[in-house]
Amino acid sequence: MTRDFGPGAGMAEDIAEQPGVYARLLDRQAGTIAGVAAEIARRRPRFVIYTARGTSDHAALYAAYLTEIRLGIPAGLASPSVVTVYGARPDVRDALVVGVSQSGGSPDLVEVLRVAREQGACTLAVCNNPDSPLGEVAELVVDVGAGHERAVAATKTYTAELLALLMLLEGVRAGEGRLPADERASLNLLPELAQTLIRDTTATELAPRYRFAGRLITIGRGYAYPTARETALKLMETSYLAALAFSGADLLHGPLAMADPDVPVLAMVGSGPGGDSMREVLARLGERRADVVSVGPVPAAATHIPTPAVAERLAPLLDIIPMQQLALALARSRGEDPDAPRGLRKITETR
Amino acid sequence: MTRDFGPGAGMAEDIAEQPGVYARLLDRQAGTIAGVAAEIARRRPRFVIYTARGTSDHAALYAAYLTEIRLGIPAGLASPSVVTVYGARPDVRDALVVGVSQSGGSPDLVEVLRVAREQGACTLAVCNNPDSPLGEVAELVVDVGAGHERAVAATKTYTAELLALLMLLEGVRAGEGRLPADERASLNLLPELAQTLIRDTTATELAPRYRFAGRLITIGRGYAYPTARETALKLMETSYLAALAFSGADLLHGPLAMADPDVPVLAMVGSGPGGDSMREVLARLGERRADVVSVGPVPAAATHIPTPAVAERLAPLLDIIPMQQLALALARSRGEDPDAPRGLRKITETR
Repeated sequence: MTRDFGPGAGMAEDIAEQPGVYARLLDRQAGTIAGVAAEIARRRPRFVIYTARGTSDHAALYAAYLTEIRLGIPAGLASPSVVTVYGARPDVRDALVVGVSQSGGSPDLVEVLRVAREQGACTLAVCNNPDSPLGEVAELVVDVGAGHERAVAATKTYTAELLALLMLLEGVRAGEGRLPADERASLNLLPELAQTLIRDTTATELAPRYRFAGRLITIGRGYAYPTARETALKLMETSYLAALAFSGADLLHGPLAMADPDVPVLAMVGSGPGGDSMREVLARLGERRADVVSVGPVPAAATHIPTPAVAERLAPLLDIIPMQQLALALARSRGEDPDAPRGLRKITETR
Repeated sequence: MTRDFGPGAGMAEDIAEQPGVYARLLDRQAGTIAGVAAEIARRRPRFVIYTARGTSDHAALYAAYLTEIRLGIPAGLASPSVVTVYGARPDVRDALVVGVSQSGGSPDLVEVLRVAREQGACTLAVCNNPDSPLGEVAELVVDVGAGHERAVAATKTYTAELLALLMLLEGVRAGEGRLPADERASLNLLPELAQTLIRDTTATELAPRYRFAGRLITIGRGYAYPTARETALKLMETSYLAALAFSGADLLHGPLAMADPDVPVLAMVGSGPGGDSMREVLARLGERRADVVSVGPVPAAATHIPTPAVAERLAPLLDIIPMQQLALALARSRGEDPDAPRGLRKITETR
């Protein structure tokens, strides 16, 4: 491949590095993550609270689904403002409180973890910079090891967070931290599957369809909902589209009215119970003559972006890759630079 | 006032009835709600899980803020798919699981409450129809008593849910269920304050500004975030706008890139810590030359929709009223009928 220059060159490189990031996490970080998982399993938290912003919030959402479905432990996403703006001190004894952050530098997340630790919670930072304020304030730390990210729009740090959280929570499920052999075998396929997607040009070739779109809807259910949310954010950040993400079920409770042939829909449809539950949603969108493009292992609409057939809970680690490629290509076709979107900085500090 | 006919007549009547709904809740339902509150206080839940869809999801979000800030009990919103699609059975012993629903008829919420009760949780239904499947499956029930709602776009059932949840949670805070005298006095002002807003035409007069807008951003932080979310949903349902709601902090973590002079912003800015924390957000929007209209007791932008100065946690019960009026007027100016939006039914059933 020739070296990519010009606007979005950084984002293109970040995207292309994801197979390597997966391989590194599985190889070099597995031991550390297993140690943290074993410690969490020992503590037996009654519930898990995730706190994050932006792209990392979608990794946290994915982890919340895993926590409830795979561990049977109630999980939720915290609003930092409760602690940082209103000064509340929720009783989080027996809880695991997890901060997920690329930079580990946003003061609100640091404060939520500091207060949670003071209240007796077990605290964990999952970030790309373990020496950050978030890493320092937490009792336990997982370094997602994605390396320096060039573009402001996060890509490889997102997928690194997804895999690190998956390895961690499956380790908690296994009890002693180490992954069972079959789980380990499935994860070991990820670098190669991701590489296949990196080479696939389907999503990039679809970008011109959206050249003049002002708005767009993304949908997914269950494990695929974080992918819908992250896709929408990438399109907002890089191409300034008004991109609205809904769980398939929530779409039917109101926002469906907005769908018409002029509002494109990107539908994440996996092979599994989450994907199956999208059937009614796709039928209702069909009644509204919506322009639907499906993403997943099996076409669910006339236009389709194929992704590998894997267990639904692994799909978020792969399905987002063509969506990142779409955002990059669309930004370029609009003459925008996704490496430096207007109005944004790489490290966002909120209180 | 002359009787309103034509498209949106039902929604106009629903909106106008809100002061009466407040008065009725405070008068006739106070005893029942206090009884339920006392029972919850006796159970001392370790955490509270809310489950809801559409408009009711925003009432649940408001309740989650109240639960954490006023009661110091961790709270979160559950994804029904975890239970209904993936068959998970999270361990919710010691939890209070609350279903919030206008109709009480969505099968997914009924299933979440049924499973939670089976797992040993204390379960509560907050709905406008206590004889519904949701009311029947829950151990405790609060009837929000809003009466028949004419329009598909929910208005008075939303504010009734807000007030019922506020009365309930303040009752739990008081311990024996009954509200303290000062709290009761503040709530007793709500019907009159709501009536003042019903008479105010500021929001209705602003509607023509948005006649040709295709997208819009709503923002708020803390207690005002549910108002931002509900405003966005009303505009999607009635006027088919792509309306994106963000917490003020989350806007800065990416979506800000989308803001420019052609994307209107409705900013909920209360008088209190949540409103104060919006200052940086408004400054950043100013740098992007965004078209901001503020909603609250004190103007925070050149164009302003005034609402009464009340404690921030009471503001959601009032600030949404001009937003409902705006949605109604905008739908009418676009020739749409908010009483029967395209593609929607009054009772949405999802699984």
